[in-house]
Amino acid sequence: MGKKLTSRSEDYSKWYNELVVKADLAENSGVRGCMVIKPYGFAIWEKMQAQLDKMFKETGHENAYFPLFIPKSYLSKEASHVEGFAKECAVVTHYRLKNAEDGSGIIVDEDAKLEEELIVRPTSETIIWDTYRKWIQSYRDLPLLVNQWANVVRWEMRTRLFLRTAEFLWQEGHTAHTTKEEALEEAEQMMHVYAEFVEEYMGVPVIKGTKTESERFAGAEETYCIEALMQDGKALQAGTSHFLGQNFAKAFDVKFANREGKQEYVWATSWGVSTRLMGALVMTHSDDNGLVLPPKLAPIQVVIVPIYKGLEQLDAISEKVDPLVKELRSKGISVKYDKRDTHKPGFKFNEYELKGVPVRLAIGQRDLENGTYEVARRDTLQKESVQAEDIIGKIELLLKEIQENIYQKALDYRAAHITQVDTYDEFKRVIAEKGGFVSAHWDGSIETEDKIKEETKATIRCIPWKAEEQQGVCMVTGKPSTQRVLFAKAY
Amino acid sequence: MGKKLTSRSEDYSKWYNELVVKADLAENSGVRGCMVIKPYGFAIWEKMQAQLDKMFKETGHENAYFPLFIPKSYLSKEASHVEGFAKECAVVTHYRLKNAEDGSGIIVDEDAKLEEELIVRPTSETIIWDTYRKWIQSYRDLPLLVNQWANVVRWEMRTRLFLRTAEFLWQEGHTAHTTKEEALEEAEQMMHVYAEFVEEYMGVPVIKGTKTESERFAGAEETYCIEALMQDGKALQAGTSHFLGQNFAKAFDVKFANREGKQEYVWATSWGVSTRLMGALVMTHSDDNGLVLPPKLAPIQVVIVPIYKGLEQLDAISEKVDPLVKELRSKGISVKYDKRDTHKPGFKFNEYELKGVPVRLAIGQRDLENGTYEVARRDTLQKESVQAEDIIGKIELLLKEIQENIYQKALDYRAAHITQVDTYDEFKRVIAEKGGFVSAHWDGSIETEDKIKEETKATIRCIPWKAEEQQGVCMVTGKPSTQRVLFAKAY
Repeated sequence: MGKKLTSRSEDYSKWYNELVVKADLAENSGVRGCMVIKPYGFAIWEKMQAQLDKMFKETGHENAYFPLFIPKSYLSKEASHVEGFAKECAVVTHYRLKNAEDGSGIIVDEDAKLEEELIVRPTSETIIWDTYRKWIQSYRDLPLLVNQWANVVRWEMRTRLFLRTAEFLWQEGHTAHTTKEEALEEAEQMMHVYAEFVEEYMGVPVIKGTKTESERFAGAEETYCIEALMQDGKALQAGTSHFLGQNFAKAFDVKFANREGKQEYVWATSWGVSTRLMGALVMTHSDDNGLVLPPKLAPIQVVIVPIYKGLEQLDAISEKVDPLVKELRSKGISVKYDKRDTHKPGFKFNEYELKGVPVRLAIGQRDLENGTYEVARRDTLQKESVQAEDIIGKIELLLKEIQENIYQKALDYRAAHITQVDTYDEFKRVIAEKGGFVSAHWDGSIETEDKIKEETKATIRCIPWKAEEQQGVCMVTGKPSTQRVLFAKAY
Repeated sequence: MGKKLTSRSEDYSKWYNELVVKADLAENSGVRGCMVIKPYGFAIWEKMQAQLDKMFKETGHENAYFPLFIPKSYLSKEASHVEGFAKECAVVTHYRLKNAEDGSGIIVDEDAKLEEELIVRPTSETIIWDTYRKWIQSYRDLPLLVNQWANVVRWEMRTRLFLRTAEFLWQEGHTAHTTKEEALEEAEQMMHVYAEFVEEYMGVPVIKGTKTESERFAGAEETYCIEALMQDGKALQAGTSHFLGQNFAKAFDVKFANREGKQEYVWATSWGVSTRLMGALVMTHSDDNGLVLPPKLAPIQVVIVPIYKGLEQLDAISEKVDPLVKELRSKGISVKYDKRDTHKPGFKFNEYELKGVPVRLAIGQRDLENGTYEVARRDTLQKESVQAEDIIGKIELLLKEIQENIYQKALDYRAAHITQVDTYDEFKRVIAEKGGFVSAHWDGSIETEDKIKEETKATIRCIPWKAEEQQGVCMVTGKPSTQRVLFAKAY
C-alpha cells in the first residue's frame, strides 16, 4: 500500500488523485486521458448501474444499443450541437493497417481511407434521432422511452480520473414525445430520479435546478441538473436532463401523424449520468484515512478479520465466523472473511479503512472467550465490543445508520456552505475565501454571467428548482432580478 | 408488421435477415456494418448477460473496464496478434473537427493529428497486458481473474445482423496465472461454462473441442471452442476460450516473483462470447412463423390477450386477469397483459408469435363463462383449454417443457446431421448435399485442411474434446490419423 495518503487539508486535489489509485478504484492507462477502472472501482459502478437501471425501468424505459460511430455529416446536422462537440472529437479516418514496405513496422494503410470520417460518439443524439425517423410514424409509436449504457469519448485536454476523462462510461436516455408538455415532464422526472438515486444510494445531497442558457447542453432548450458540493467547497454537476424541443426532430426530419392524421415534429429529451458520479462519491464522504462508502453501494459491506496465532486458533475462530458469514449472506449482506495468512491484522485494518468498507469485525482469542466481536464503523471510526448473539442486529443497524449519517454529514456541510450575499464585493470574498454555493441576485444576462466567471472563476451552477420569487437587484449591474441563483466554482 | 416472413425452405438466409428485423431484434444503422440493437433484442441480450455474469462471478471472476483505444504500437507487440487484426482495424488519427475556411462545412482539423494513431479495440489483450504489468509483481497477485463487458470493432467487409458486424458487444475474460497447468485449466473451465450457458439457457446444444492451428485465435497456443449447428446445416462457433501461453506476458514484459523469489513470465488465457449468440439463438429454434425463444431468456414469458367487445367485457376479463398477472409476477414470471384497443386479437397473436413469446393465454366471453383460458405454446403451436384454477401450474409446467423441448429438438436435428465418412468423395457429397457436421479422419496437416477448405468450403470446426482415439487414415492423403475431427461449412 506504500506511504500514507496526503491529507485533504494539505492538498485536496492530490488527496483525491492518490486515493482513487490507492483504493484500487481506477488508474491512468497508457492511452492519453483514458482510465482503467479496476475491479474494486468497477464493483461500485456496477451497483450504481444496477440501481439506476431499475429506476429507469420502473419509470417505463427500455434499454437498447446504438452504434459507437457517428458519420461526420450526422453530427453536423444540428448546428449548436456540432458547435459544442466538434473541438473534442476522436475521428476515425481509416479502416486498415499494413506492414510498411520498408519493414519499419505496422502503418496505416492509406488505401483504406474512409469516404466519410466517423466520429467516436461524444453523445448519441444524432445517430439515435437518425434511427428514430424509422421507428416513429404515428402517435401510437410515442412516447418512445429508450436508454443506453455506453462508452463515449470527448477529447479533453486536461483529464482527471473519473472527473474528466477522454473516454467515460455513462447512460444516455433519449425519449420522444407527442407534446412539449410531456417532454418537459419527462426531462423534469429524470432530474428527480437522478436526485433520488444520488441522495438515497450515494448519500450525496444535491440541489435541483435548471442551467442558464450559456451552461446548457449543446442543442438543448432547457437543461435540468442536480448539483452536489464537494468537501473543498467546489460544486460538481452530478447529472443532467435536457429538454431538446424539436431541434433534433427537425434536423433529422422525425415527424409523427397525430390523432387527426396531421404530421408534426416530435418533441425530445435526453439525460445522462456517468462514471463522474464515482468522483462525486469519493469526494463527498472520504477522509484522510481513505474511502468512506455508503453501505448501499459498498462492494463489501462487512469485513471480518480474525486475530490469531497458529492454525488451531484460526480454526476455533472460523467455527464461529463461518455460520455468521452464511447468515449475513442469506440476508443479502455482502461480507468478506479475510483469513489470509500472508498479511497481519493491522495491515488488513488499514486496507479496509482505505477501501471504505462500512463495517469491520475483528475477533481474537479474548473475544472467543467472552463471546464477543469488536465492531468498528468506518464513517466515525468508533469501535465497540458486541455480544455474538446481538451481532447480526447490530450489523443491520449500523449499515442503516452509516448510510444515514454520511448523508446527514454531507447535508450539514452543504448547509454551512451556502452563503447568501447581496454585493459583488462580498461575493468575491466568499468565493475566494470560503467557497461553497453563493446565492445571489443576477440580472439574467450572459454578459454579467461571463464577467463574473472571468473575474472569480465562479459559474452559475443552477437556477434552483421551484425556489421562491424574491425581488432584488443584480449584485453586479444593479438591474432588477426576481430570483436568486446559485454560484460556485465547479469541477 | 407488413407481409409474411420468407420461409426457411425458400431462402434460409433471407428468412433470418427478415426475422431479425421484423421481430424487433436489431436493424442496420446509417453507419456501414454497425447495427442498432432494438429494445426487444436488447432485453434478450440483457438476460444473457445477467446469467453469464453470474456464472463468471461464481467461478471467481471480477469485472473491470479497460480503454476503448489501443495505441498502434501496443497492437504491434505480439507478432501473430497484429497479423490477425491489422486488416480490419478502425483507426483514430485526429482529435478535433473545425469549420472549413471556405464555409463548406465541418472538416477534420489537420492541426489536431495524433502523434500515434489509436486503434479502436478489436479485442483487448494488448491494452490489458500492458496494465497487468503494473498489477502483477508476485505469485500473491495471482491468479488474476478479470472480465470486461465491452464493445469492440472489427472492420468486416460483409456484415450480417448479429452474425458479423463491424461493431459488436461482447465480454472478454483475461486471466493471469503462475503455471501453464492452471492457465490450461482456466481456459478449459470457461469452455465448460460457455457450454453450460448455451445449452441450459439458450437451449442450443454444442460440441466442445479445440481448434486446429490455422483456426486458432491470433496469439493463442490453444483455442477451446463450442460449436453449434444451425437449421440450414451450417455450424456456428458460439464461444471460444484461449490458452495464450506466455506470449502476451513476454510481449508486455509481465513477470512475477515465484515462491522462491525467482522471476517468471505469467501464463495467460482469454475467452469471449458476443452478440453473435443472438444469431445462434434465432437460427437454432425459430420457424416460419417467427422467433421461438427459450423461456429462460424470453423478455416476455407469458402474454395474455383479452378477446372482447366493448369496455364492459374488457372490465370483466381484467377482473380475472389482473390478479393472475400479479401472482405470476410474484413467482418471477414475466407477463404482459396486452389490452391495447388499437389492435385486434388476431394481430396480437401474430405479433407475439413473431416475437417468440413462449406461452400465450387468450380469454374471451366463453372462457369467462366456463372459467377457462385458451393456452397456446409457441414451440409446437399447440392450443388447449385450461381451467382457471389450474392455470398457474400449467404455465410453470409449460415454461419448463418448452425449454426442454426446444433443446431436445435441436439435439435431435444435430444427431441427424452428424455424418461419419471415410472417403473424400463421400465427404464432398455430404457437405454439398446434406450439410451438418461431417466426422472424418485427417492427417493433421495445414496443407490438407486448406485443400479441403478450398475444394468444399468446409473447415475443421473442432477436434472434439475427449473424443475416443481411433486408428484410421486421412480421407484425402491416406496418411495415418488417430482421431476423427468435425468438419462443416460455417457462419
